[in-house]
Amino acid sequence: MATGKINVSVENIFPLIKKFLYSDHEIFMRELISNATDATLKLKHLTSIGEAKVDYGNPIIEIKVDKDKKRIHVIDQGIGMTEEEVKKYINEVAFSGAEEFLDKYKDADKDTGIIGHFGLGFYSAFMVAEKVEIITKSFKDEPAVHWSCDGSPKFTLKEAKKKDRGTEIILHIAEDSTEFLEDSKIRELLMKYNKFMPIPIKFGTKTETLPKPEDAKEDDPAPTKEVDDIINNPNPAWTKQPVDLKDEDYKQFYRELYPMQFEEPLFNIHLNVDYPFNLTGILYFPKLSNDLNIQKDRIQLYQNQVFVTDNVEGIVPEFLTMLRGVIDSPDIPLNVSRSYLQADGAVKKIASYITRKVADKLSSLFKNNREDFEQKWNDIKVVIEYGMLSEDKFFEKADKFALYPTVDGNFYTFEELQNKIKDNQTDKDDKLVVLYASDKEAQHSYIEAAKAKGYEVLLLDSPIISHLIQKLETSKENLSFARVDADHLDNLIKKEDTAISKLSDEEKEKLKGEIEEVVKEKGYTIQMEAMDSSSSPFIITEPEFMRRMKEMQQTGGGGMFGMGGMPEMYNLIVNTNHGLVSEILNTKTSKKRERLINQSLDLARLSKGLLKGKELTNFISRSYEMIK
Amino acid sequence: MATGKINVSVENIFPLIKKFLYSDHEIFMRELISNATDATLKLKHLTSIGEAKVDYGNPIIEIKVDKDKKRIHVIDQGIGMTEEEVKKYINEVAFSGAEEFLDKYKDADKDTGIIGHFGLGFYSAFMVAEKVEIITKSFKDEPAVHWSCDGSPKFTLKEAKKKDRGTEIILHIAEDSTEFLEDSKIRELLMKYNKFMPIPIKFGTKTETLPKPEDAKEDDPAPTKEVDDIINNPNPAWTKQPVDLKDEDYKQFYRELYPMQFEEPLFNIHLNVDYPFNLTGILYFPKLSNDLNIQKDRIQLYQNQVFVTDNVEGIVPEFLTMLRGVIDSPDIPLNVSRSYLQADGAVKKIASYITRKVADKLSSLFKNNREDFEQKWNDIKVVIEYGMLSEDKFFEKADKFALYPTVDGNFYTFEELQNKIKDNQTDKDDKLVVLYASDKEAQHSYIEAAKAKGYEVLLLDSPIISHLIQKLETSKENLSFARVDADHLDNLIKKEDTAISKLSDEEKEKLKGEIEEVVKEKGYTIQMEAMDSSSSPFIITEPEFMRRMKEMQQTGGGGMFGMGGMPEMYNLIVNTNHGLVSEILNTKTSKKRERLINQSLDLARLSKGLLKGKELTNFISRSYEMIK
Repeated sequence: MATGKINVSVENIFPLIKKFLYSDHEIFMRELISNATDATLKLKHLTSIGEAKVDYGNPIIEIKVDKDKKRIHVIDQGIGMTEEEVKKYINEVAFSGAEEFLDKYKDADKDTGIIGHFGLGFYSAFMVAEKVEIITKSFKDEPAVHWSCDGSPKFTLKEAKKKDRGTEIILHIAEDSTEFLEDSKIRELLMKYNKFMPIPIKFGTKTETLPKPEDAKEDDPAPTKEVDDIINNPNPAWTKQPVDLKDEDYKQFYRELYPMQFEEPLFNIHLNVDYPFNLTGILYFPKLSNDLNIQKDRIQLYQNQVFVTDNVEGIVPEFLTMLRGVIDSPDIPLNVSRSYLQADGAVKKIASYITRKVADKLSSLFKNNREDFEQKWNDIKVVIEYGMLSEDKFFEKADKFALYPTVDGNFYTFEELQNKIKDNQTDKDDKLVVLYASDKEAQHSYIEAAKAKGYEVLLLDSPIISHLIQKLETSKENLSFARVDADHLDNLIKKEDTAISKLSDEEKEKLKGEIEEVVKEKGYTIQMEAMDSSSSPFIITEPEFMRRMKEMQQTGGGGMFGMGGMPEMYNLIVNTNHGLVSEILNTKTSKKRERLINQSLDLARLSKGLLKGKELTNFISRSYEMIK
Repeated sequence: MATGKINVSVENIFPLIKKFLYSDHEIFMRELISNATDATLKLKHLTSIGEAKVDYGNPIIEIKVDKDKKRIHVIDQGIGMTEEEVKKYINEVAFSGAEEFLDKYKDADKDTGIIGHFGLGFYSAFMVAEKVEIITKSFKDEPAVHWSCDGSPKFTLKEAKKKDRGTEIILHIAEDSTEFLEDSKIRELLMKYNKFMPIPIKFGTKTETLPKPEDAKEDDPAPTKEVDDIINNPNPAWTKQPVDLKDEDYKQFYRELYPMQFEEPLFNIHLNVDYPFNLTGILYFPKLSNDLNIQKDRIQLYQNQVFVTDNVEGIVPEFLTMLRGVIDSPDIPLNVSRSYLQADGAVKKIASYITRKVADKLSSLFKNNREDFEQKWNDIKVVIEYGMLSEDKFFEKADKFALYPTVDGNFYTFEELQNKIKDNQTDKDDKLVVLYASDKEAQHSYIEAAKAKGYEVLLLDSPIISHLIQKLETSKENLSFARVDADHLDNLIKKEDTAISKLSDEEKEKLKGEIEEVVKEKGYTIQMEAMDSSSSPFIITEPEFMRRMKEMQQTGGGGMFGMGGMPEMYNLIVNTNHGLVSEILNTKTSKKRERLINQSLDLARLSKGLLKGKELTNFISRSYEMIK
């Protein structure tokens, strides 16, 4: 038996990096700026604890592009490296660098903000460069070092003349990567990945207009000067404490995040937790409209102010992906699949923390300014309803503040609604019946009929409302929902009292037969009902159960299999107490009776929005005749 | 100056693999089976060229799970490894293994089907195993070898007793990965990644019912036997030649791919190209319905029969991602970002090849069986119209076979339509005016009016049709589209002849004033037009330009900025030649005149679908009164 060590052939490490480590070449810039930031923050830390006896000053990171020489320079004023350190951190594949440092200063690591997660970052330079140089001078009193490598494992190392503390990385851009020599491309990358990094990043200069001197003439141009163009905001709102931020600061930060969004957010939620995981961030509830911008401006994920992705699927609960804003957490594993993410314990805790914070914020908005909450309800309800459907814990909390608007513009919580309607809308089997409409216009006559009986009618028009209704009915006892056009009202809320019919049973039978004869081809089921004489003579209804199942299937999931393709089913209710109905019964000539039935049926169908096309055109021309 | 070699510390390679190389732990099974397949195909190749003098036989790959011992075994009957080869391919990080082999047998590599793309595959075992053993015997006459490693870089190597040719990998599953010891989980992985791999894969056994023996009694149970459960189809349809496949074979393969799809595909497109890139595959046009299954059953990407992903964004042109099927190409770079993919030259060529093949297939379906093509049009039009909008090359081809259905169910190509209508629908400025409706029912009266003048009316009801109309108008000359309710027909297609008005200009002015007085609050612009006396007295129209811009904005992109939020604009056209209009003019009592105007307006609004809510309810109860 032999033993040995698995040997990694060094010739192979660069293709490995190029091929596997990074899926996106452009992130080399993020990596190098992360390292530069890291080096600067390390120095800050060492000076703060007295280990580095130098002046920290106001260090910046500078990016320079030299298109003619095909070079990009990344220059920092950070800790720098001695020859010894270059050998250790650059010549050995060094993904232990930042970790080692963290180990050494363990107690302090919460505050240093050291990035350190992108340990192999330096080598990503070889994705775009055919040659890389490092010129670095340590804060320690040692000579500067010049390292150079052309992508083969061979490097050269010599003394350099650099006088200032810090590190300069020079990339000699390869032929296939010259796009990165365009100013506009670099600016795009900086704006994407580094917009909120903690050290100021300079990229070129810009012209600033100065105030005119007192003695300037009217026509004199205002004086200008060239100043450093700092592209980032090193202190973004989410890194501050909520107490230090005003409402306007949150709005200002929203505009920074989404410069193309002109609509202001409805409100924000500041996230801030450091145990059992680290997470900061600000979430915004946008006004959700139907346009497609929702998809574009998404929640952005950062790690220590470095942009990582705007795909937070798996990290943020699905129902909250409609929100906007920023989440910053070093505790979210990167480079793993979404399905793995969802199974990760830390990520699960993060998701449930975010859910709880959102629920708490909504709850406090509801309690502290009910009027404002009601006004915003229609813009936020989809998120809340979706959350109630998908997360049981959120349901429990939201059940206390979710609102149910009526067609008259009142907003009730479920409990308030229950109290309001329990006397009048509890049926003889002790079931509370909630009436609702999905469209105030289309169901107008049905709504009016319900209101005439003193019933409250909710206006529930979210796309997923059928699912939520189903959930409410199963999670609460003795409760059922019915749309106002689901049946005759006396059937929707059945009470003990029996209605008195003007017609005898015999007359009813006769009339039913005659009507059936006329409408039979149209497939209505006829119900004879003794209603108020002031109610409509004919009413068309659509049974709740079938309609809801169809709707649920159309909006995905739920509902019964195959119901989506079923035809609509309608009932025709005949009000036996209406004068017109008596008239139909008493009309002797069958032609005239048929005309009365047809015209009444057309009007009932019109009321339910079912009279269309040729039949509507015919109805209209008949009506023009009748006016004349 | 010093030079040296960058040194990769070997202790670090396993965490590197675990952390960076693979984003999804479950793919270890794909990797190991790929290696096993590779080893088997290598042997097949060597025997076929006479370099291996052994019997190739009918090799299979076997997967065994030992839940008690927490082990997974992957066993092949392939080429095996000698001690020398284990040292070379396993003890050195070996992503050159397959490449070296390919180099050696370069001329043959097209046919061997060697996978080789997942060179680092073996090490993925350490993502789920705390210890890995290899027991392998080469086809060469050398002793078997037993290699073992616990995830540290130390390994042991000794002789083994294995007699049969091939390799067995034994994974000792780690505590955090015990989910992979479930039969159901392994079966799921095999079905996901290996369903179409070229060597039969055995996972356990299944019971097969045999025919009853002749002398069996009625009650005797049918005899059964245990047979190997082969989970894959090693010869999927796309690897065969189109001439060897019948229509039923394509349908059968569709069912294999999407077992949960009960609807048959409309037709398929067999892809097969080997220069300048390698690609095979079968695409299916599904019947596109509104349910959400479209999202779930997507085109699957394979490399040499190994499943890679079902996210083909960036590879297949966006408008074709609604299709289903399989694409198999070793030339698509993996592990790169989508944006990089889209910029890749080879991938661009692949996308344009697929586009061309789809266009050619559609063109031949159109030419060879026009009737069938017309029947399928409504199911495929969204894909074609979207393609015409987004890819100019596709537009050029599709312009010859894209169909424009009329409200009467005729289907014209654009050229046919042009010939059909040019005499009657060219206006006085030589512009061809195409009339269309978006809804046969809602626009019924307008359609009838156009047909009465002998005009053809198209039925264009795709969600993106406004965009396509816009594109057609700008890419063809002297062409404009107008929806039938956009204006009075004589204005939509202006001809030289002037209509004769029954009313004098004075009478018109007087009438216009009176009508304006009544309808002014409703915001209609009134147009007095001398139309046929048989046309409606009042007609409401909606100008084409504004409506289309709004629609385009609602369906994303295009349209003018901010138009989406504009209110609808309607005109009220008064037919000065209609008897009812004369009657309004001649009615002396203002109250009666008002009633006539209001009732006519209500009917016009009804016809345009604008009479809703309270106004409709009032209209209906007024109408009930009128019946009585």
